[in-house]
Amino acid sequence: MLEELGRFCAEEIAPLNLPGDREGSRCDAGRVTTPGGFRAAYDKFVQMGWQGLPHPVEYGGQGLPRTVGAAAGEILNAANMSFALCPLLTDGAIEALRHFGSHQMKAVYLPKLVAGHWTGTMNLTEPQAGSDLALLRTRAEAQGDGTYRITGTKIFITYGEHDLAENIIHLVLARTPDAPRGVKGISLFLVPKVLPDGSRNRVTCQSIEHKLGVRASPTCVLNYEGATGFLIGSENAGLEYMFTMMNAARFAVGVQGVAISDRATQQALAYAQSRLQGRPVDGSTPGAVAIIQHPDVRRMLSHMRATTEACRALAIFAAGWQDRGDAAMTEFLVPLVKGFSTEMAVQVTSLGVQIHGGMGFIEETGAAQHYRDARILPIYEGTTAIQANDLLGRKTLRDGGTTATRIAAMIAETEAALGGGSSVARDIAARLGAARQDFEAAVAYLLAASTNEAYGGAVPYLMLAGNLVAGWQMARSVLAGEAFAGDRDFMAAKAATARFYARHILPDTGLQRARIIQGAASLLDAAV
Amino acid sequence: MLEELGRFCAEEIAPLNLPGDREGSRCDAGRVTTPGGFRAAYDKFVQMGWQGLPHPVEYGGQGLPRTVGAAAGEILNAANMSFALCPLLTDGAIEALRHFGSHQMKAVYLPKLVAGHWTGTMNLTEPQAGSDLALLRTRAEAQGDGTYRITGTKIFITYGEHDLAENIIHLVLARTPDAPRGVKGISLFLVPKVLPDGSRNRVTCQSIEHKLGVRASPTCVLNYEGATGFLIGSENAGLEYMFTMMNAARFAVGVQGVAISDRATQQALAYAQSRLQGRPVDGSTPGAVAIIQHPDVRRMLSHMRATTEACRALAIFAAGWQDRGDAAMTEFLVPLVKGFSTEMAVQVTSLGVQIHGGMGFIEETGAAQHYRDARILPIYEGTTAIQANDLLGRKTLRDGGTTATRIAAMIAETEAALGGGSSVARDIAARLGAARQDFEAAVAYLLAASTNEAYGGAVPYLMLAGNLVAGWQMARSVLAGEAFAGDRDFMAAKAATARFYARHILPDTGLQRARIIQGAASLLDAAV
Repeated sequence: MLEELGRFCAEEIAPLNLPGDREGSRCDAGRVTTPGGFRAAYDKFVQMGWQGLPHPVEYGGQGLPRTVGAAAGEILNAANMSFALCPLLTDGAIEALRHFGSHQMKAVYLPKLVAGHWTGTMNLTEPQAGSDLALLRTRAEAQGDGTYRITGTKIFITYGEHDLAENIIHLVLARTPDAPRGVKGISLFLVPKVLPDGSRNRVTCQSIEHKLGVRASPTCVLNYEGATGFLIGSENAGLEYMFTMMNAARFAVGVQGVAISDRATQQALAYAQSRLQGRPVDGSTPGAVAIIQHPDVRRMLSHMRATTEACRALAIFAAGWQDRGDAAMTEFLVPLVKGFSTEMAVQVTSLGVQIHGGMGFIEETGAAQHYRDARILPIYEGTTAIQANDLLGRKTLRDGGTTATRIAAMIAETEAALGGGSSVARDIAARLGAARQDFEAAVAYLLAASTNEAYGGAVPYLMLAGNLVAGWQMARSVLAGEAFAGDRDFMAAKAATARFYARHILPDTGLQRARIIQGAASLLDAAV
Repeated sequence: MLEELGRFCAEEIAPLNLPGDREGSRCDAGRVTTPGGFRAAYDKFVQMGWQGLPHPVEYGGQGLPRTVGAAAGEILNAANMSFALCPLLTDGAIEALRHFGSHQMKAVYLPKLVAGHWTGTMNLTEPQAGSDLALLRTRAEAQGDGTYRITGTKIFITYGEHDLAENIIHLVLARTPDAPRGVKGISLFLVPKVLPDGSRNRVTCQSIEHKLGVRASPTCVLNYEGATGFLIGSENAGLEYMFTMMNAARFAVGVQGVAISDRATQQALAYAQSRLQGRPVDGSTPGAVAIIQHPDVRRMLSHMRATTEACRALAIFAAGWQDRGDAAMTEFLVPLVKGFSTEMAVQVTSLGVQIHGGMGFIEETGAAQHYRDARILPIYEGTTAIQANDLLGRKTLRDGGTTATRIAAMIAETEAALGGGSSVARDIAARLGAARQDFEAAVAYLLAASTNEAYGGAVPYLMLAGNLVAGWQMARSVLAGEAFAGDRDFMAAKAATARFYARHILPDTGLQRARIIQGAASLLDAAV
């Protein structure tokens, strides 16, 4: 099934990536037109049933586990991140309705959304309320007939208006007139573009943004002018619902990081294999060679490949815990998938530009688009700092380090198993052990530190933990490979990549440990 | 004088940065039009005599030292990198003619170039010859009258055609028919757009590139169709001339890195001071505060500020050695200024986007432009790998580590002096000593390593050395401050920034050391 999706994406979706970026979506008097080819491709996507892949069979989906959903999400996003954002947001709306919608709401909306005939959006941000939802002002007034009148302006609404589907189901955070102040007074509403009676709802697209990347996807300013909305769940519980959905959305964005890293790596590899430039430094060939033969190009490609494979393994690992229903592990891992994989995607796509040299700076080459597209990933669905505060506060300090300690113990078991393996396995075990000790030292420090000291080290802690858990998965892949009787070349490459990761990327945990533990005082005193 | 330049750039040049990016340069049937306002601003730039600032008095310049030239270059580039590229290339042409032009050539061209009435270009790259000049094919045939006919296509020619000045002086690398193969058969020619007799030379702009950044500056494909050229110096010595000029050009690009970092930092600081979002993690305020009060925003801003100040100090330090005529120190430091400051500029401008959150991804905000503009810096005038190979091969291995050892000894003297200072000074001394030892260990390893092992570590070595020497300048600024009776607040901020650098950025030398020494084998074996 994944191979079939790969074929479809390679043939139908990926070719729209570069022209879609150049053309962009257009907004004209409230109507949004996606770039050429998007509509036909979306129709095929719907016909083939891809939207329903991870969703329940009872609403027309295929009910596949999250591990498979993660792999599918990577393929679609690697083909075209701008295109993939539309199904990604629909996934979020499905998730919300499935958990919190009424029986009737599910019956009306879920089959259409799961089929992809209708698409979904998330409406959180307002001009004065980004990361801080306590500041939001959009109002919802009960009409006495069970519906609400929604009034306000929402910004940064991905696919908030478009021409791909016949209806758009907006999930909107708003306040009722008598709601408590702050985040405890936020409710969640379903506001369809087209109402069940077929009439057009009072929500309009005012404009779309001129963005650094994902330019084919329309990012809308939506005006709600007394639009009809339907309450999801109970009043004032909106934030709680959002938190439940956030794990899925944040995980999906982390997978986007893996996807764009993989695409950048594939493109850089192809260029490095074909571009002839420079003699080898060791003098082994008299004329110009493919640049992949130069040690630093090899270093950059290995860095891209190892990072991508490690972040992919981290994502699938996290999805596995979610499939098994282990809440503590899932909750700990999701900010790593979101935070670490997306920060790495920025670095990997930057290396992709660098490998292309001057050609990388020319938009026609495509490497620059990946670099631009990747830059949104550490920002939307919660910035890296928001992920890090979540990891530190809710997932580490709140349970007194229990889950962190559990993970460290599991890593120590892998080290022990590697110790009985090949010389490469033992080498990796030593580096993994050093990184685990950096993690344990950081956790011990953070549990004892003052609030400001601890949160000043939150992002370094996320980067340390993400690197460690991703590197751990690379180490586990070596163990699996040494017990595997299949494709030896594939497994040898895997081991070499894991060793590169252990030697070149994993040692960054020492730097992050120093920033957390020795860096706190200098941060609090710093001149800014 | 620098304050006057700052005023001029703030009022006349900086306001053209964002609109210039949006409008871009246009090419229409060989004519290139720069964005609105560029021509009037360039006229004022010329009238005020800024082009001549670092150039000899005998040709109409002001003859100021390179330390002052570096500061001036930073100001102009911080205002508008696309605009500043035109004078930057003219500087390069002046440098070349001053060193290698005939007496008559100097008399005809230098006064016009130094005044800024004419501008200069460097024509190295061809489609098949980027970093590898051995592959270039442009031909130069002697005409028997002392001139040459130049035929070929050059790409990536910055300001190769434009409407800012009445003439453009192209310096072109080409081969004579009987030249030796490879880089020993390259000659340098002066090819004016308008010949001394007033006729138009046979060089035309075929097109300009659609680029990731510096979009206001035209990057041209130039066709030479039997254009009249004048030999500079002797035949087949072109590469030697280029190397002499490269120090100046590479240094100037390093200064661009400082400049764009400074602009990104100023913009992020202003945003962080005004954007209200989120309560403080320590609960010290009940409502939303300016985001600068959040520990991670503070960390990012401190990182931006400390990096910018350290890279600035590194550049001025290198310029000082050049002013004093110490060739060995200058040659060692230039690849650090170019390589380290530009890689840091990519990181700093990325943090600038991150601090803006979602707004950073919207082009109107301006943060994204700095991020796009900065990305060319580690590529042009020699990629970071080219700088690193130069640092390793010509500047470290060739003299058996003599200059590297000299620098390490100077750093140890600074450590000793700091040891007698305040507790902050002693703290910095300890971190600086650890970083110096990482450098010494890396140099010892690289001197003994095989060619492929050593060059696989070239970029980590450049990043280690750049970080160390930049951090050393921060430490020296603390020493200077403790002996200084002037502005105490300024000096206290300097010391706090130096301490932040020592605690958060300098420890990266340990990671680079591990990559160089423990990472070589895993790189040579890596699957790519």
